[in-house]
Amino acid sequence: MTGPLVLHPIARVESSLQERTDAPRQGDEGAPDAWVVFDESVRAALADITAGDELILITWFDRADRAVQAVHPRGDTSRPATGVFSTRSPDRPNPLGLHRVTVLAVDGLRLHVNNLEALDGTPVVDVKPVLGDIHER
Amino acid sequence: MTGPLVLHPIARVESSLQERTDAPRQGDEGAPDAWVVFDESVRAALADITAGDELILITWFDRADRAVQAVHPRGDTSRPATGVFSTRSPDRPNPLGLHRVTVLAVDGLRLHVNNLEALDGTPVVDVKPVLGDIHER
Repeated sequence: MTGPLVLHPIARVESSLQERTDAPRQGDEGAPDAWVVFDESVRAALADITAGDELILITWFDRADRAVQAVHPRGDTSRPATGVFSTRSPDRPNPLGLHRVTVLAVDGLRLHVNNLEALDGTPVVDVKPVLGDIHER
Repeated sequence: MTGPLVLHPIARVESSLQERTDAPRQGDEGAPDAWVVFDESVRAALADITAGDELILITWFDRADRAVQAVHPRGDTSRPATGVFSTRSPDRPNPLGLHRVTVLAVDGLRLHVNNLEALDGTPVVDVKPVLGDIHER
């Protein structure tokens, strides 16, 4: 048996993006630099991240609609409605976001990163390195 | 205010991998083919996935230790202990796993996929397409 799967926010996004209508559809489509501000409780987990690291952030889209199972890709109603597991829509049963970013600077519990399309205040739930080739692991 | 961030399992892994000691460290290091068996409640979200699709599965490592914040990378004690946000260790504050797979076959609510290092019974919480170039989105 698995109990409830409860995520604890480890950080929050600080960004100029305030509304969904402000945000680009993906980080590499004009998203701004932003700060990710971590909780003191995960300082040790964060300790080895340095400027230049390529990371994957996993966020919780707290303004998403979890009941949505199909969307028109990129909001284009000329495209057929598509099951959300074949799209990157934030509206989905478990509203997790994946964001590939580069660390521009580290200031204690704060990371400055590029290309983050998440809205201001979005909870961050995990951080992972982008994997290099097998021989670099 | 954000309430508790509760994930609902959307699928389970069916795999020959039974124990953590059986599993390779990453999916491209000799992981087996496996089945991902979805819940009826997400049939519409799954509807457009077809054989050949490249997907990212997000799993919940239900046998992980969430209190761990530093590990020796790849279990190699000759390497210094490293903050888990700089590693892919399943032991981390929020035990989410990222797995890049190719769909080999679709049979109703079951996807046959390659290269999945998750253990038998692991909950799956999200499925996303691998993003192509901007002009293909």
